[in-house]
Amino acid sequence: MLIGFIILGSEAIMVYKVLPTVNHDTTKLIHLILHAIALVLGAVGIYCAFKNHNETGIANLYSLHSWLGIGTISLYGIQWIFGFLAFFFPKAAPNVRKSALPWHALLGIFVYILALATAELGFLEKLTFLQSSGIDKYGPESFLVNFTALVVVLFGASVVVAVVAPARLEEPQGYAPIPEN
Amino acid sequence: MLIGFIILGSEAIMVYKVLPTVNHDTTKLIHLILHAIALVLGAVGIYCAFKNHNETGIANLYSLHSWLGIGTISLYGIQWIFGFLAFFFPKAAPNVRKSALPWHALLGIFVYILALATAELGFLEKLTFLQSSGIDKYGPESFLVNFTALVVVLFGASVVVAVVAPARLEEPQGYAPIPEN
Repeated sequence: MLIGFIILGSEAIMVYKVLPTVNHDTTKLIHLILHAIALVLGAVGIYCAFKNHNETGIANLYSLHSWLGIGTISLYGIQWIFGFLAFFFPKAAPNVRKSALPWHALLGIFVYILALATAELGFLEKLTFLQSSGIDKYGPESFLVNFTALVVVLFGASVVVAVVAPARLEEPQGYAPIPEN
Repeated sequence: MLIGFIILGSEAIMVYKVLPTVNHDTTKLIHLILHAIALVLGAVGIYCAFKNHNETGIANLYSLHSWLGIGTISLYGIQWIFGFLAFFFPKAAPNVRKSALPWHALLGIFVYILALATAELGFLEKLTFLQSSGIDKYGPESFLVNFTALVVVLFGASVVVAVVAPARLEEPQGYAPIPEN
């Protein structure tokens, strides 16, 4: 669920960079829909956490993971609603959109880093509980969780770098055209 | 120790943005020295962790926090040595520096996000151990750690945004000049 949240959110963030030659209205729609699905996955994931806690008698909302998660999903939702209203429908005036767009992108990076930190905290927290109730600290389950978490954080930091890196406007496909003669 | 690592590293990253009117050689020297101090603080912090573990019989290097921390400090060190050799002494040829600089900045952002994630994992891990050995999950100590961690992650994500945001070249002090008449 929350892996899906990270992956779809990442793809949504990168879509303008990944598909630079595709029509802008199309990429905007992809951006919007991917973020909407990611948001729903995130919200369902949080609902499941509360449901599971309540059914098994675990305390709610005391850990850093939960605090950061609630903050992140709230900002994510605000950002989506703002983006939808300003850039899709009913769409703000061109000069408003022009000045709001860099802020939209920067706030997006901000929220994405928070989401990444939350995901990492989730891996560590769950595994710490499992390890203190008996699983081997150097066993295969522990390594599986740790390596998954490493892949997620390396992926996430690479997404930030990919989004922030300047675009190759002269070679939109990412490779140089083969010379003609 | 590790808070100092984050703060000094952050200031080092932001120095070119924060002091845009200062001579470039001066800001480069500040950047270099702040990162060097941060690196030493980080290394001493890691040494203390091993020392403490060995003296109290805690297992080493099984948690995500430790894995990510070792990876981060290694990349941080490589990045510092590379930067020193390429941009300070003996300095690469101008065309090499020109093409290496964007990679230096992007790798720096990458490592900074990893450092941030490691710091957050550290807060959560330590607090989880304290909570499972008895301190109140909603008590003042827990809230203090969580709020500190929140401040660190919000600060860190803001640093990335500040570094990535376009500079105001026409107003290097960050405010518009007061009109003359």
